[in-house]
Amino acid sequence: MALNGIDGLIIDLDGTIYLGSQAIEGAKETMEHIRAAGIKVVFLSNRGNYSRRMCQEKLEAMGIPAAAEEIILTSSVTATYLLENEPDGKAWLFGDEGLHEELRSHGVQLAAKPEEADWLVITLHESLTYAELNDAFRAARSGAKLIVTNEDKTFPGDGGECIDVGATIAAIVHTTGAEVSVVVGKPSAYMANAALRALDLPPERCLVIGDSLHSDIALGKRAGIRTALVLSGSTTRERGEAAEERPDFIWDSISDIRTLLQSDKEERQ
Amino acid sequence: MALNGIDGLIIDLDGTIYLGSQAIEGAKETMEHIRAAGIKVVFLSNRGNYSRRMCQEKLEAMGIPAAAEEIILTSSVTATYLLENEPDGKAWLFGDEGLHEELRSHGVQLAAKPEEADWLVITLHESLTYAELNDAFRAARSGAKLIVTNEDKTFPGDGGECIDVGATIAAIVHTTGAEVSVVVGKPSAYMANAALRALDLPPERCLVIGDSLHSDIALGKRAGIRTALVLSGSTTRERGEAAEERPDFIWDSISDIRTLLQSDKEERQ
Repeated sequence: MALNGIDGLIIDLDGTIYLGSQAIEGAKETMEHIRAAGIKVVFLSNRGNYSRRMCQEKLEAMGIPAAAEEIILTSSVTATYLLENEPDGKAWLFGDEGLHEELRSHGVQLAAKPEEADWLVITLHESLTYAELNDAFRAARSGAKLIVTNEDKTFPGDGGECIDVGATIAAIVHTTGAEVSVVVGKPSAYMANAALRALDLPPERCLVIGDSLHSDIALGKRAGIRTALVLSGSTTRERGEAAEERPDFIWDSISDIRTLLQSDKEERQ
Repeated sequence: MALNGIDGLIIDLDGTIYLGSQAIEGAKETMEHIRAAGIKVVFLSNRGNYSRRMCQEKLEAMGIPAAAEEIILTSSVTATYLLENEPDGKAWLFGDEGLHEELRSHGVQLAAKPEEADWLVITLHESLTYAELNDAFRAARSGAKLIVTNEDKTFPGDGGECIDVGATIAAIVHTTGAEVSVVVGKPSAYMANAALRALDLPPERCLVIGDSLHSDIALGKRAGIRTALVLSGSTTRERGEAAEERPDFIWDSISDIRTLLQSDKEERQ
């Protein structure tokens, strides 16, 4: 089976390209093959606590060069959402520095006090403090709408599964009674559209590659994009095969794409 | 109406004696009156992030002396619960230093790693870090039973209502699917019994004074102790009067007890 008609790849990062701070074995070489084959690429990640610049540096350090336009994070898509939907709205941010950097660079207006915020943006915050949690609580309690980069409960980190942004969302929702208004991350149409726009390709000519059934594979299914589940992250083969919406491919890792690229090449010859 | 037959007071702290770091107006003088009238006292607080020693120092600084035995915190009662119910169990702690101090001083065994814990103890943690939250998550994910000092969503702090331990509990429960096994705090029988034991009085000779309908007043109702709601904390007169389980007294603050002490004195003369 070749890559028939696939000209663009939408590639997840955590669990697909790297795990924590380590590149997944073969990811670097596979990306070189993909580039050499002239296939378009975007990296699509639910991480909202990175800026594109930080992500670019992380990939660069693993020997995987990427242009800023090839990186789509929930932080960037959150900024776009706010600017397009409520350009005069003021945001209060709960998340690591990358979120702040990305929203600043897009020109999103920030509230001076939590009580004055129209939106509370929540993402993973690995340097959170109680005071920041309390400020987020006060923003939500004062009526700020909740926009969250993703709702994941865990992510694969250096020392195993780590607690993700779902924890903070639950904390704020439970203590304030607020509800989440917008979930930016995969499997949303916001992310699928941002990826397709960046690739400038119709869905049927793309393939989503990722390790998560409920974010990567579900995004592909909803947007009419073919899907490849990789087992290098948070999902086992059993769960992949038992999935209600079965991925088009199940690969041990992204390296398996090389067989397809090879047969594609042979077919063309 | 006099204090007929009340020989022991069970007095809440946050919202009743102090708000944040400030003593409530008249609390110091009222405590002096109570002491002078020879009425027994215990302070009963759902705060589990203080040790008795820390609480004693805080009260002392406000001019309200109290013996360690007169202070009952959820941290102390948690320690007693663990030692009585699972003396060989190992605990992992999520909370401020006061919790650690109190459990150490009681001799509760601590787990060396989150994954080895039989119990995860959760209380308010105003100096929390992501790494600590992640460790608590790992303890719960590995099967540690959840024992929480209280489930309050907010507490009255210096700058208004602050986010309380309910936030962390929601975060852990939501991300792990674990359930809370034991809630130590008011209105539990653990707290009521600890207070009555310390006062060495039957319930009908005591009065609970506190600002919370669902912790202080509910504790009194369940344990057969009369109750006085004070409006110096988180509850309004309207809510107090509309309560399904109406308190025996509704006072603007603890100072109102002085009228009763006065008429009590006059009746006795």
